[in-house]
Formats: sequence, C-alpha cells, structure tokens
Amino acid sequence: MTNPHGIDLNADLGEGFGVWRLGDDDALLAVVTSANVACGFHAGDPATMRRVCAGAAAAGVAVGAQVSYRDLAGFGRRFIDVDPAELADDVLYQLAALDGIARSVGTRVSYVKPHGALYNAAVTHEGQAAAVVDAVLAFDRRLPLLGLPGSALLRSAEAAGLRPVPEGFADRGYTPGGRLVPRRSPGALVEEPATVAARAVRMAADGVVEAVDGTALLMPVESICVHGDTPGAAAIARAVRAALTGAGIALRPFSG
Amino acid sequence: MTNPHGIDLNADLGEGFGVWRLGDDDALLAVVTSANVACGFHAGDPATMRRVCAGAAAAGVAVGAQVSYRDLAGFGRRFIDVDPAELADDVLYQLAALDGIARSVGTRVSYVKPHGALYNAAVTHEGQAAAVVDAVLAFDRRLPLLGLPGSALLRSAEAAGLRPVPEGFADRGYTPGGRLVPRRSPGALVEEPATVAARAVRMAADGVVEAVDGTALLMPVESICVHGDTPGAAAIARAVRAALTGAGIALRPFSG
Amino acid sequence: MTNPHGIDLNADLGEGFGVWRLGDDDALLAVVTSANVACGFHAGDPATMRRVCAGAAAAGVAVGAQVSYRDLAGFGRRFIDVDPAELADDVLYQLAALDGIARSVGTRVSYVKPHGALYNAAVTHEGQAAAVVDAVLAFDRRLPLLGLPGSALLRSAEAAGLRPVPEGFADRGYTPGGRLVPRRSPGALVEEPATVAARAVRMAADGVVEAVDGTALLMPVESICVHGDTPGAAAIARAVRAALTGAGIALRPFSG
Amino acid sequence: MTNPHGIDLNADLGEGFGVWRLGDDDALLAVVTSANVACGFHAGDPATMRRVCAGAAAAGVAVGAQVSYRDLAGFGRRFIDVDPAELADDVLYQLAALDGIARSVGTRVSYVKPHGALYNAAVTHEGQAAAVVDAVLAFDRRLPLLGLPGSALLRSAEAAGLRPVPEGFADRGYTPGGRLVPRRSPGALVEEPATVAARAVRMAADGVVEAVDGTALLMPVESICVHGDTPGAAAIARAVRAALTGAGIALRPFSG
Repeated sequence: MTNPHGIDLNADLGEGFGVWRLGDDDALLAVVTSANVACGFHAGDPATMRRVCAGAAAAGVAVGAQVSYRDLAGFGRRFIDVDPAELADDVLYQLAALDGIARSVGTRVSYVKPHGALYNAAVTHEGQAAAVVDAVLAFDRRLPLLGLPGSALLRSAEAAGLRPVPEGFADRGYTPGGRLVPRRSPGALVEEPATVAARAVRMAADGVVEAVDGTALLMPVESICVHGDTPGAAAIARAVRAALTGAGIALRPFSG
Repeated sequence: MTNPHGIDLNADLGEGFGVWRLGDDDALLAVVTSANVACGFHAGDPATMRRVCAGAAAAGVAVGAQVSYRDLAGFGRRFIDVDPAELADDVLYQLAALDGIARSVGTRVSYVKPHGALYNAAVTHEGQAAAVVDAVLAFDRRLPLLGLPGSALLRSAEAAGLRPVPEGFADRGYTPGGRLVPRRSPGALVEEPATVAARAVRMAADGVVEAVDGTALLMPVESICVHGDTPGAAAIARAVRAALTGAGIALRPFSG
Repeated sequence: MTNPHGIDLNADLGEGFGVWRLGDDDALLAVVTSANVACGFHAGDPATMRRVCAGAAAAGVAVGAQVSYRDLAGFGRRFIDVDPAELADDVLYQLAALDGIARSVGTRVSYVKPHGALYNAAVTHEGQAAAVVDAVLAFDRRLPLLGLPGSALLRSAEAAGLRPVPEGFADRGYTPGGRLVPRRSPGALVEEPATVAARAVRMAADGVVEAVDGTALLMPVESICVHGDTPGAAAIARAVRAALTGAGIALRPFSG
Repeated sequence: MTNPHGIDLNADLGEGFGVWRLGDDDALLAVVTSANVACGFHAGDPATMRRVCAGAAAAGVAVGAQVSYRDLAGFGRRFIDVDPAELADDVLYQLAALDGIARSVGTRVSYVKPHGALYNAAVTHEGQAAAVVDAVLAFDRRLPLLGLPGSALLRSAEAAGLRPVPEGFADRGYTPGGRLVPRRSPGALVEEPATVAARAVRMAADGVVEAVDGTALLMPVESICVHGDTPGAAAIARAVRAALTGAGIALRPFSG
C-alpha cells in the first residue's frame, strides 16, 4: 500500500560561498520538494541564499534552514564542542537571517535541519540537540525539525512540543540498529541508481529499510534525503523521484 | 524653544565579538534611547546580540540594526567596493538575523543605521546608499533609516518612501558645509563634556550646530549620536543626557 | 628574433577553500612554469596550499605568493581601503605562511604577485603598492614582484631595490595606453585559442601587444599570465604553451 | 636548593584582534621571559603580531607560536574534531606566518605552544598531539614544544626527537593525578598573589606542586605559565617574578 500522505524529497542546496559552487542547485530544484538551504555558517553567502530561495519559490519547493556550526573552512563537517547556549544563539541567527531573505523573495523558512557534524552530534548529544530545539522555539514553534529517526534531536523536539520529522537516506547503508553506517566503513554508500530508487520506494511505501546485514528495519519516514554534491547526484535524485512517482507515491513537502 | 518632539540619543552597542568587549554596554543602556546593535559583520556574535537586545528590552531602549561591510578584522571601518546588489543581500541578512534575535527576547528591530565605513560611503556613494535602502524595503518598509543630514542615504530613503531620520554628533566637529571634519584633522573631536553637552542642547533645542569656523549651521536632527567606545565615553553620554533633560527636552526613541 | 631569455608562463592556482575547488590545478601544473598560489586571504586553506606546493615541486614549477586583501566572501576581487601599514603586515603574514608550507614540501616562495583587486589597486595606488613592496623587503629582498608594466607596484619595487617583473595577458584586450580593458567593456577578453596563442608568441618574441584599436604597443614582458578558472582555460593554456614552444621560445621560470 | 638551570616564565600575548584587545601585553612583556604569541587563528591579526613581536624583541623576551584551532568566534576554547593531517597544515601555516613576522622585527619563533582547547586536546588526543608535532618537524625540528607534563603532546614530541618542555601553572589547582582541576570545579583557581608566588617558587626550586588534596606531586617543570587576561593578572605575574628572584632563582627563557 502506498503511503497515504505521500513523501517528501529533501536535498542540501546553496552550499557554495562567494565564487565557489557546490552541487547543481538548479537541477535539484527540479527534483526535490524541500530545499535545505545553507545559512552562511558552513556555506551560503547572502547572495547565494537569495538566489536559491528565489529558485525554490519559483519551483514550489519548500525552504528549510540548514543550520550549522560556524566553520566555513571545515564545511561544518567537524564536531565543535560549542556551549549549548551559544549554539542556540548561533542557530537562531542563521534561521532568522534565512527567513528574512526567503520572505524578500516571496517564500519563508518552513522547517529546520541541522547540517553535517551538527546533524550527527544531535543524534546523541542531548545538550546540542536541545540547543537546536531552543532556537526553533525562540523563533517560531510552528517550524518542524527534520532529523534522524530515534535521534536526541527528534526526541527533544517532540518533548518541547515541536513537530519532529523523521527522514531516511536511500543512498546510505544502515546498521541493524538503525544508524547510518559511517562514511568510511564498507556498505556506507549505495551508489547504483536503480537500487537507490528501489530503497526509496520501499521506505516511502512500506516504511522499511534493509540494513547492511539484510535485516528489514521498520522505520517510517516523512522525507527522503537525496544528495546533490557528488557527480551523478542529480541523476540519482531524478531516478528516485521517477521511481516514487511510478509507484504511485505523491511527492509533496512535509511542511506544506 | 525646546523641541516639541523631544530628541533621541543613540549609541553603538554590542560591538564585541566572542571573548572581546568594546565599550560599556550596560552603562550606555542607562543613558540612550536607541541602541545601534552590531549584527555580526563588523562585530557582534549572536550571543552578544541576544544579551544586548535583552538589556535594551529591559531598559526600554529601542533596538536598531547597525549594519556593516563584512570585515571583522577591520571593524567595518574600511571602505569595501562591494557590488550594490551583494551589499543589499548582506544588509538584509544582518537585519533579519538581528530582528529574529531581538524578537526572541521580546523586542524587535525598530530602525537601521549603517556602521563605520558604510555609513561614510552612504553619504556620497549612490549605489551603496541605494543598496541599504533596498535591503530595508525588502525586509520591512516601516523601518526608518538613521543617517547624516543631506546624505545620499537619507535622500535615497525618502525617494523610496522610507522615513529618513537625520542625526547629529555633539562630539564631532563640522565643516561649514555641514560635513563631519575627518577624524585625523584638527577640530575633528570635541572632548570637553560640558561643551559636548551644550552642543547637544543647541542641536536638540534649536536645530543648530556651530561649525569649526564658527558658522551656525541650521541642521534639524531627530537623534543625537553619542559614542561608547572610548574611555570616559559613558561619562560624556551621561552629561549630554543630563543637559538635555535639564533644558526641558524630552528623551525618547525616534522610532517609538 | 626570439626572446633570448625565454619566457615564463604563470597562472593562479590553489584558489579553492575547504571543500570548494576552483580551476584545474593539476592540468595547469603541466603547462605553466610559475604558480601563483593563494595564501588563505582570498582563497587557499593550508591543506590546499600544501597540496599545490607539493604538485609544483614535483612538476618543477616555481611557487609564487599570490597575496590578497582579507576577503574570502569576495574572493579578493573588491577594493578594500586598508591602511598601508596594516596591508604590509597582512601581506607579510601570507607570504611567510606560504613559504613555510612550501619549504615543508621541498620548494620555497620564489616571487610575489598580488591578487585581484589588490593587483588592480597596486597599478595606481601608491600607498598600497608600497605596502606590498614593504612586505617583500621585510621578508626577503631577493624575491621579485610580478605585476603590470608601468604600474605603481613595479615602479615602487624598482625604487626599493627589488626586481620588478612585468607580465602580459595574452587573453585580455589592451587599451592604446597599455592598460587592460575593464572586464565588462567590449574587447576585454580574447577567447579564441589560436588568437590567444598568437598574441602570446608576439609578446614573447617581439615584446609587442596589439591594442584594441590596432596600435602595436611595445611592452616587453618576462612572463605571460594564463587563466585557469574558466571552462576551457586549461586548453587555452596548453595552446599558448604549444605555440611558444613551436616558435622556438624556451619556457622557464623568471625566478629560476 | 635553587634550580641550577633557572626557570622560564611564559604568558599568552597578542590575543586581541583588530580593534579588540585582551590583556596588557606591555605589562606582561616586563615580567615574562617567553611570550606565547597568538597567530591569527584564535586571535592575533598580523599588525598585532608584529607589534607584540617587536615588543618582545625589545624586551629580550623569547617569542613562541601559540597555535590554535581556527576559531575566532570561540577564541580557540572549543574542541574541534579536525582531521590530524589538516590540523598539521593549520599549525604549520600559523607557525610560519608568525616566524616571518618575528624575523621582520629582529627576532624569531623559538618554541611552540598550543592554545586553549588544542592544548587540552593534546594532553590525551594522540592524533591531534601528533599533528602539532608533525607541523614542528616540518618547519624546524630545533623548536621545543611547551606543554603539560605527561601529556600526549610531550610524549609525541620526545618520540619524534623534538625537545619537550614541561610547564607548570602556579595559579591553577592540580588533581592528585597531576592534571589541572577543570575550570568550573572547586579549587580550579588559586587567586591570592602570595600563594601563587609561593607555589611558583616551590615548583621552580623543588619541582613540587601541592595538589588540591594536599599531596605533594613531584613535577619538574622548565617553565611556569602566568595568565594575562584577567584583572589583576599582571600584578600576580609581577608577584611571581619577584618571589622567584627573591628566592635566588634566575629567570631566563628555556629556549635561550
């Protein structure tokens, strides 16, 4: 049975800075229903933010704040032991800045998703997870938080009265315990487009993902994350979208 | 005759970054009616921004966005030949970020004032002046712009339908043409507290400032800027406030 | 008659930052004789600097310090009105940092070339040109300075006892006065590879460049700059090298 | 019996950035024998670096490179999980930059000391400790490394053939195991100047420090660190110096 609510496809966009570009924002805007837009701390200068928000508005794609540690040099991929109170302020700053830019081009921030090392930290680090939640509470408690099923982030969001939105990764391997296989371990990446697409359909239709050892994990998700920063990424994203549509699963923003 | 509308006192606040501090924010919050809060580009990390906004909210002081070139190393004091379209995005980013933080502590951004070299550029640089105006238009056209009387910034604001707010500097010398004497020229600074206070009263009561050659310039202002980043600055600010109050001039935010 | 001293080919390398890349460093290292390596202020994190220096060392390419204003967001392409004394310190910092990294992989900084807006400023801005010269004097007065013929930079270098090295741009249009046609004006760019190559040969062999109005300018240069940051740039660079070699002109670093 | 080799006093200097200042560099230069100079990653713009190096040269104080994570906003006080290979490049960059500046004013970098969170990480984090050592090996293997007795940093330095220099903190509490009491725990700080001075003398004369539980720890050190960034810090530093001199202990740089 297909998911009666349909499914969302999200990807990271606007991850350039100044002259530098990363990924093909235009190609992804034609595929996804939600765009995680970088807010200036790991990537995303204001002009890039505006351009991507305008593109999302034109394409009917929801804009999410992809908030990060302050770390341009490390692209937000390195854990930083930031004091949670300061982290909450950093997240609020990014969120508000993006929302102001989004509104200037006719859209708005519809959700929040931590980036990179902050995303990973928020799986288990209660203090930093709570900091992200605190920032959203301070800004607009109607904004959902997108994260890993079972993460401290989603638990903390739920406890605070925010809407937690679990997401799946069709192109990443899962441990039998439901965690992502670390990037440098065998089975971390699923690269064959047809396989990625089939996994996405199973996630969306049945709420099931197959772990690296073959276990079928029940893991209902409201969004599927596709990547945009590798060669061929846009092609995979298109394959995922086509397979979902072909399976009769509606694609729509979870924040709609 | 005293100014029937009263007068506003503004100062730059929150100009530290991380561990670094500049000026005595607490002392100034007890004196001014409007706080120009640094937004992160020349000073002002998010935690500092929140702390100053909370202090301003508690003291009943209006919060303004003190927007700047992106230049922490130069404290925003160096002209940067930024493309106006990019500058507008940079200003919008700062403005929106500060407003989000201000709202989280119960206040909001009530006006905009460019900082340092951007303030000076906006006196004559039509493109950069228009960029600041464009950012305010994109964010909230009810926000007044604070600037030098006769500047391109205030002309551009008025032409765009924004409210221009002219300010005076009681502790700075003026040329007979109504410009500030450059900082390194003789007569640039007025340092004797009683003289500064007397000049402030004359500005507020009569709309007149005496230039370095003795000319009486007619220059109506709605706000008087006092400085906070020098030793003795808070004492001078208090002297200005006391003199204005003693002359029967009400102190209140222009953005009230 | 061919240039008895041969000619140098230089290009900008290592202009990525963190995850971001710009241009094809490996392709250019196979073509040029001198690599202008970004030093961290407009581009070039330390890991990128080391990688490019190691590649240059392996390829027998000379390493130059491509010093810049501190402006990652603007890629050093925006004039900044930095105080010359501070600019000298900024340049010295970059130069020393790159030299330390270069030495760690078996090479060293052999020359200095300002980047972007600083390069352009140093054509006419005596104070900033002198600041670059002062930094080189402070670090190692044996290092040549690469710049535009007739620029304040080269005049200042010569007056200070440094070796000025004039360079030409085979892919840029020249005014009859010997300046580069501004990037946004007609005739700014020469894009046809065979034309670029022919201009390079004429520069190297005869010291002549044809201006946009057909004037033959006598402009002896010791190096020709090729660009690496556009699609097809490496192909053009290879065409230039092939044409020079085919004309019997030896390619060798000016700093050799 | 007094230490036949005398003792070194070190402090952190040049920890401002742009307009911001931290601590009283001039006061400390009159007290210490070694200055740990910030290199731009947690503090220390190039102009500040030059000014402090010039002051150190004039005062006969040795210059050390106080290398850090790249974290101006956090003043290098937050652990960052930097890849060791990248960290080694970051450290080399800082070290080389400072040495270039130091040489321009007649001195040079004589040793290396990690700052803040990197200092703490290097006590136990083998990978990051080795990264600091690798950077020193790459730059100049004659440079000693200053650190905590028993730390991974000093072990790694010794194993690599570098000179490890153990230091003590007269104003910090020690656990019975010889580690510093964490800053937020009781007994972390010793604040009474006479007590600090007496502890310094015992460290220098007998190689003994008393732990918070009264245990006498045998901990020979070649340098004693005094702090400069708190009110009264310079006064304490002077008290330490006076007590050491009064006890007949010579003050001299360990790197002399």
